Amino acid sequence: MEIVFIGSGNVATNLGLAFKAKGFIIKQIYSRSSQHAETLAAKLDAEYISDITDIYMKADLYFYALKDSALKTTLQKIDMPSGIHVHTGGSIPMSEFEGLASRFGVFYPVQTFSINKQIDFTNVPICVEACNLEVQKILLDLAGNISDKTYLMNSDQRKKLHLAAVFACNFSNYMYDISSKILEDSGITFDIIKPLIIETAEKINTLTPYAAQTGPAIRMDMKTISKHISLLGRNSEYRKIYKMLTKSINKRHKRSY
Amino acid sequence: MEIVFIGSGNVATNLGLAFKAKGFIIKQIYSRSSQHAETLAAKLDAEYISDITDIYMKADLYFYALKDSALKTTLQKIDMPSGIHVHTGGSIPMSEFEGLASRFGVFYPVQTFSINKQIDFTNVPICVEACNLEVQKILLDLAGNISDKTYLMNSDQRKKLHLAAVFACNFSNYMYDISSKILEDSGITFDIIKPLIIETAEKINTLTPYAAQTGPAIRMDMKTISKHISLLGRNSEYRKIYKMLTKSINKRHKRSY
Repeated sequence: MEIVFIGSGNVATNLGLAFKAKGFIIKQIYSRSSQHAETLAAKLDAEYISDITDIYMKADLYFYALKDSALKTTLQKIDMPSGIHVHTGGSIPMSEFEGLASRFGVFYPVQTFSINKQIDFTNVPICVEACNLEVQKILLDLAGNISDKTYLMNSDQRKKLHLAAVFACNFSNYMYDISSKILEDSGITFDIIKPLIIETAEKINTLTPYAAQTGPAIRMDMKTISKHISLLGRNSEYRKIYKMLTKSINKRHKRSY
Repeated sequence: MEIVFIGSGNVATNLGLAFKAKGFIIKQIYSRSSQHAETLAAKLDAEYISDITDIYMKADLYFYALKDSALKTTLQKIDMPSGIHVHTGGSIPMSEFEGLASRFGVFYPVQTFSINKQIDFTNVPICVEACNLEVQKILLDLAGNISDKTYLMNSDQRKKLHLAAVFACNFSNYMYDISSKILEDSGITFDIIKPLIIETAEKINTLTPYAAQTGPAIRMDMKTISKHISLLGRNSEYRKIYKMLTKSINKRHKRSY
């Protein structure tokens, strides 16, 4: 099976390495930046292009691993080859391919990727959607090659999953960032908080987040809450976030605040 | 060394088990609830009391592992024995013991504890503060018995650390909770998001949270942000949180929103 990647970022890099390790041939990498395309192509023993009209026409599968905003523009520039076309975006409907390709779908890995940290896909849930049953089977088999967790999911559910992922990943990471900023401003090493972050995350394997909730907000510990708000200073953005989240936790657990 | 625990909750349970495993004698457990005291005492081969005036007078160390709000009230009721008195609270100053005990300090483990999940303390940072150098040495040695990471930290720094811990633990857990609620309302299993949560947390070992930030907010991906806000519904609390955190992430990364 020959694969082409349109895009050379975190998702393309990690998916490409996972498929290459399973013996798939990565034929070509496209990126607007020929340097980015070249870097990834070197890792995957692939050709690279930076002009989309040079796209290889005979691949079995075309992965569009692009920023959501870049996908539409790119699709409009391509004279679609006959292979299967899939994008990897959580919040983009499959219908983006309608009228452009005849065989298409979505291949959404529910994970956060970095260029420099290779992900083991075995444990990464992959959500598949396809234009017909034949393509669906091909994509599920493909997903099953790299992951033990494959799901069929339509575009409506996937966009809710993507929204949930923003809270679970982007916003929880921002909580770490605020935490690190508070420590940095106090001359305390961020290392001291790392075991707490890891343990908080690992608790989801034994408790629901609802049951795992701890802290001054759920205890209605107004004394500690007031101390914290005062530590954050009068006009701080963090103060607004602290108050809003504290209020919301309290409401969720049905205690007055 | 004989230890008495005042309190029988998550912190007392986990510290008690850690010290018992290292050969310390847990002499007595106090809790207002005799049932709670009995449960922990059984795990630690200790006596239990629910009347604080029955406190064992000859222990070397008294641990006050109580809710912040309960500590002051409890301290006022005790005729302090001559041992060393320490509390485990992040946001409570050491000075709470002044005038009440002659040898005292703070022993703050930077971790989140559950009664039913025993924590390996080896990796748990323990922040120590003491009334004098003699007590300081005893507490640092004690901490070193169960943990490889001991820190000296004064009350001012500790309360900032505790504030940072609220963001890193309580608020990040609340992000998981919102995520699970969104999935539940959409009929999607929370299991699908667990590997993402674990990976997001583990990234802090290789990247700063600032460098690890991903998602529509940092990309200024207004199309996805608008979709998400509309999915959350007009009057939703989660919508307010989404908007506030998106705005704040954008500001932190110095892009306009």
